[in-house]
Amino acid sequence: MSHGDVDPELEMTSPHWMHREAESCPRMHTIWRLERWRSSMLLLIGLALCVLRAPGCSATDTDIALDAKATLNHRIQSLDLLVFVFLLALTVLTIWLFKHHRVSWLHETGLAVIYGLIVGAIIRYAGTSATLVHMQVEPQGVPTYSDKLPPDTLWFRYPVNQTNSTKLPEGIKTYAYVFRGQVHDVDENEIDLKATFDPEVFFNIILPPIIFYAGYSLKKKYFFRNLGAILTFAIVGTTLSAFLIGGFMYGCVKLMPNYLSSSFSFLDTLYFGALISPTDPLTILAIFNDLRVDVNLYALVLGESVLNDAVAIVLSGAIQNYGEHYSDTGEFETTAFLRSLSDFFSIFLLSLMIGAAMGCLTALMTKFTRVRDFPLLESALFVLMSYSTFLLAEATELTGVVAVLFCGICQAHYTYNNLSEDSRQRTKQIFELLNFLAENFIFSYIGVSMFTFPKHHFDAGFIITAFICAAIGRAVNVYPLSWLLNIRRKPKISSNFQHMLFFAGLRGAMSFALAIRNTVSDARQTMLTATSLIVIFTVVIQGGAANFLLNWLKIPVGVDDETEQLNNYQVHSVYNSMDNSHPQTSDGYLQDVEGGGVGRGKVRLSGGTDSNLDTSVDGPNGSLGGASSGRRRNSHEKAILARIWGNFDTKYMKPLLTHSRPTLLETLPVCCNPIARLLTTTQQLTQDGSEFRRVDSDSDICIDNDTGNGLSQDATGAVPGSGVGVGRRNSLSRILTRD
Amino acid sequence: MSHGDVDPELEMTSPHWMHREAESCPRMHTIWRLERWRSSMLLLIGLALCVLRAPGCSATDTDIALDAKATLNHRIQSLDLLVFVFLLALTVLTIWLFKHHRVSWLHETGLAVIYGLIVGAIIRYAGTSATLVHMQVEPQGVPTYSDKLPPDTLWFRYPVNQTNSTKLPEGIKTYAYVFRGQVHDVDENEIDLKATFDPEVFFNIILPPIIFYAGYSLKKKYFFRNLGAILTFAIVGTTLSAFLIGGFMYGCVKLMPNYLSSSFSFLDTLYFGALISPTDPLTILAIFNDLRVDVNLYALVLGESVLNDAVAIVLSGAIQNYGEHYSDTGEFETTAFLRSLSDFFSIFLLSLMIGAAMGCLTALMTKFTRVRDFPLLESALFVLMSYSTFLLAEATELTGVVAVLFCGICQAHYTYNNLSEDSRQRTKQIFELLNFLAENFIFSYIGVSMFTFPKHHFDAGFIITAFICAAIGRAVNVYPLSWLLNIRRKPKISSNFQHMLFFAGLRGAMSFALAIRNTVSDARQTMLTATSLIVIFTVVIQGGAANFLLNWLKIPVGVDDETEQLNNYQVHSVYNSMDNSHPQTSDGYLQDVEGGGVGRGKVRLSGGTDSNLDTSVDGPNGSLGGASSGRRRNSHEKAILARIWGNFDTKYMKPLLTHSRPTLLETLPVCCNPIARLLTTTQQLTQDGSEFRRVDSDSDICIDNDTGNGLSQDATGAVPGSGVGVGRRNSLSRILTRD
Repeated sequence: MSHGDVDPELEMTSPHWMHREAESCPRMHTIWRLERWRSSMLLLIGLALCVLRAPGCSATDTDIALDAKATLNHRIQSLDLLVFVFLLALTVLTIWLFKHHRVSWLHETGLAVIYGLIVGAIIRYAGTSATLVHMQVEPQGVPTYSDKLPPDTLWFRYPVNQTNSTKLPEGIKTYAYVFRGQVHDVDENEIDLKATFDPEVFFNIILPPIIFYAGYSLKKKYFFRNLGAILTFAIVGTTLSAFLIGGFMYGCVKLMPNYLSSSFSFLDTLYFGALISPTDPLTILAIFNDLRVDVNLYALVLGESVLNDAVAIVLSGAIQNYGEHYSDTGEFETTAFLRSLSDFFSIFLLSLMIGAAMGCLTALMTKFTRVRDFPLLESALFVLMSYSTFLLAEATELTGVVAVLFCGICQAHYTYNNLSEDSRQRTKQIFELLNFLAENFIFSYIGVSMFTFPKHHFDAGFIITAFICAAIGRAVNVYPLSWLLNIRRKPKISSNFQHMLFFAGLRGAMSFALAIRNTVSDARQTMLTATSLIVIFTVVIQGGAANFLLNWLKIPVGVDDETEQLNNYQVHSVYNSMDNSHPQTSDGYLQDVEGGGVGRGKVRLSGGTDSNLDTSVDGPNGSLGGASSGRRRNSHEKAILARIWGNFDTKYMKPLLTHSRPTLLETLPVCCNPIARLLTTTQQLTQDGSEFRRVDSDSDICIDNDTGNGLSQDATGAVPGSGVGVGRRNSLSRILTRD
Repeated sequence: MSHGDVDPELEMTSPHWMHREAESCPRMHTIWRLERWRSSMLLLIGLALCVLRAPGCSATDTDIALDAKATLNHRIQSLDLLVFVFLLALTVLTIWLFKHHRVSWLHETGLAVIYGLIVGAIIRYAGTSATLVHMQVEPQGVPTYSDKLPPDTLWFRYPVNQTNSTKLPEGIKTYAYVFRGQVHDVDENEIDLKATFDPEVFFNIILPPIIFYAGYSLKKKYFFRNLGAILTFAIVGTTLSAFLIGGFMYGCVKLMPNYLSSSFSFLDTLYFGALISPTDPLTILAIFNDLRVDVNLYALVLGESVLNDAVAIVLSGAIQNYGEHYSDTGEFETTAFLRSLSDFFSIFLLSLMIGAAMGCLTALMTKFTRVRDFPLLESALFVLMSYSTFLLAEATELTGVVAVLFCGICQAHYTYNNLSEDSRQRTKQIFELLNFLAENFIFSYIGVSMFTFPKHHFDAGFIITAFICAAIGRAVNVYPLSWLLNIRRKPKISSNFQHMLFFAGLRGAMSFALAIRNTVSDARQTMLTATSLIVIFTVVIQGGAANFLLNWLKIPVGVDDETEQLNNYQVHSVYNSMDNSHPQTSDGYLQDVEGGGVGRGKVRLSGGTDSNLDTSVDGPNGSLGGASSGRRRNSHEKAILARIWGNFDTKYMKPLLTHSRPTLLETLPVCCNPIARLLTTTQQLTQDGSEFRRVDSDSDICIDNDTGNGLSQDATGAVPGSGVGVGRRNSLSRILTRD
């Protein structure tokens, strides 16, 4: 008879569930929150279907009342979620309307934020009335606090009204209460445990698909070619920016009124620096799509903005660790600093390795089994392995988001080549959709939370300083970075373009998620408010103004149609000729090949398409951008890191993890032949060399994802307007050479 | 300064988080659970990557200890989930292996259950050691119990060890505790709040995609044609079976030893009857796919097994309501019974209507906007609307699962026709994958929970009786049902086939979810154990033995390959010829048209494909199976309900909700012309009639989803082995006519 347990039906995570009169009991504080708006929302949604069936409850018993309470609680949770789902559906429809009417003064994420703000304001001012009753308790009998930690559960005997229950004749029932957290201000009459989503939802549910998709859809060739530069600028740049902002903010805050300056330590401002430094890949992507920018630069900036999210999350974790574990005083200590530094690097690298290892493991699974015969199983395996990367990293106290990013990159780089056509489509489409929904959700939520999150703390001085510092941080990233780039870049990045880069430094999901993660202290609440405002401002205003600025800075938007069509045609025809001989690589999306064998098709394309683009396409070389050079010039112009990696990848990684040629039999020393034979599939051996080379050039021709997208849209008969980015590099190349 | 709140970082839902010595404090009970196995699991997973970084924590403060506790808690949750994800990945790989080697003695869901059992046993016996500390408390000062309900939160002052914190010099902190539920057995030393997943997870996360997919992929034409029969048998049959099992069980239980019979009321056994009655559509689907059964019968059985899930959940809800709200004594009362009955019907119908309405709303949205120009937006809208159906039903206290089922049916019947090709693929693939993952998760979980769920209560007598009753319940469904069917069916359902139907009555996800939802009382725990065992037995043994039984009953499995190829070829060629003229309906998947205009292409197909199938295909007519008859015989052979619905659907619903012809301008009376014009799109008007008829026949030719699947797999170059069910009806038709 093992029923010494708690009724799971009565479990409640959100305790603001009751209409009840405020009572005069001295130990019962009541607050009114968030109930009336829900009714209002129901009306607002205006669905006549909402037949609110009153629970037919002759509530004579505490049990029944508790049951009704649990039911009501469930309804309210559903309603909360429903509001967000409707909000998202509305956003989707409006995005379509905007795209349909070619509205360019508002970016789609800006739209989500604005809708969020409107709904948040309605929720806030439509009246709230949920009641939460709490009671001060003390241990029964003589308290024995023998432990450092408070107990996990409290058992509380409560006299119930017994009218018709026959099972427990005594009028006392014992209820379990679960530990929740510290009450910081006992006098304050407000406790709002769950009026908003648990911030951890962002880190465990919303961010992983966004970051995975960023990795999965990263242009891998250009990413790997610029790997050294991207890593340096993501890590060094973001860290520098964080410390600069942190230091500057600290100075400013200390000049502010006492109540603010006393609540901020240097660690707090440093944390703020770390969370406000990363830029949002999404918005940069969208704006650069309009820009149709040089692919190398595009990969550089996109790669950096994806990676700096990863850097920021690890950096902020290290800063927090420093404050909590290593330092006793909150002031600078060399040992603590070094420990945090080693934390930062070890967590980042280990997360990276876990992600890469899981990606490679998936590649091996898909290579050495014939699971591709059953696309559904294959897709399921792909999704499960990717998700388990996140969980594995979290379970080993590393950073799941970072692991998932590198897992995504490896999945795209290796596993994708082993997948069946069906699975390629399916995984791409699923993560695209997940990414879209997650992104819009987070931006809607940023809007809603401006009004509903109870822990905002507005301070004009801090907010203004934060805006200035965020701009400075971005400037520190863009201008010195461009200067460094320009030293070895032949077509310099024009100053206009630098301004554009500076202007495109929108803050997004990661900043907000990091800010809302911890809102215990005054300082943290002030930071959250500032961050929310910065995100909203940058996304709505900067995102919306990007198009105007493009005109104002005289950066030509897009390529003239004939060039694009020519390009398109050329790519398409080459693609078609490839199609017959090698069907499984016919979809250029995500196809890529590293190292020595690349560049041939590209040169052919750029040489034959449009003669006035020829030189400019071959232009951006040098250490950071040797991508468009053909094989003839390839070896001595690529960065050393990229070259080493490329060679290693082509010789060992690709043959091991995919079906590509040359096989390990050819690249490994003779003594390793038995192992090499074991790791080489029949499919790899039976491919003939010419086919292999074709695959190579194919993947090189399909310049980036967008080209691939354009092609597949062509193929499926989709519509104009969504086929973007074909020939992007041309326009910038022209900008660059014009200077 | 609004920080009167609870630190969200310290929030914890799963309180079994600490290694700690058991203490001698009289008010501190400690239990050891579920920790050591987690360490064991980590080792078991054997990933050398799991660098367990010890938190570098100089834990001198309660804050830091709490923080470490929260971190550890998060790690353990991740690890729990990771175990399941790995389990699923392993299942996927093994399923592939089984399919690859054509192992037929174990069904894939059976595999998931068995893996679950193994992992559950490892978890159980690998040792557990999580500690949960609880403390008995009482109100501070003089208690004032002015309320019927216990308070939502308790505030508990706890003295903390202060060593380096400077913010709160007094050594007392206040912690909040959240209401969780009733403790039923105070003396028992065991409390295990979250060693398992919250049962509500099944109803809110796992079941909706499964049920939605069942609706979305239901063969709609045959489903609607047999609507009356399906509804009657799903509602009447399931209710009858539930009451029969309930009554029989009650009788048996009363004959059992006193401790058992006293804990069971008639309502309990009735609830058991309701939860054990529904059969699992998944396994029936899989087995019937092997059977390649007559499409009408297939639709009838599949439709019934999908609907009886819906009926069972509403029925069990009504029974529970009866017990909790309406009846004071637990004995029979006419008023209470009638109220429950009205509950049952009103909840079912309202849920159905909400589902259908939301489906139609989505259809209208996709018809009257050009959101199909942007497939990603369109897919997102589709997913959001479908999910909001579930939330809306739950928020209005209806049954989300039922709403989602009918939403799925409407989405497939109307919305699907408006979607772009890309969205059709994407939505189908996404829900297919979700369904696959959810199904395998639930079956794995059934296995795992046999060992880890703390509330099992084994009673051999009850279990044996339950097995017998479940078999009787299934027999009551199958044999009288078949007898009724045979009255008007020309090719009788053979007795062998009836045995097969009886044997295929596996119990699945819904039974388990309903059983685990409420495990407060002894009776409920006994029922859970019996249900788990029945599910495991039926899925593993019956599912595995199905193939042997097929041979033993001399039911031919599958059609010989040449027939299938012929069929396939024929369908394919017609499909191709259609492709040019009407691209958006070229994918036959889910295409269907109701009512008068159907049947022409079918006759052409069956007449031309394979002459020895001709008569048998036209065979199964009568009230329940007039599907394969051509237009010439259509009107007088179809069931009245199906005919009325078909007419209404073709005349009003389809023209309103899709782009199909005839338009509302033609079907509505002349006086309504302005409205009709408003509701008719240009696309509808510009379609010419011949094209319309082609669409019709196209959708009729593509007999069912599986045919569609086969086609799309052909088109994407997928592999043999997954293209199932083409020509299924032929084989059974031959079985039927043989008798």
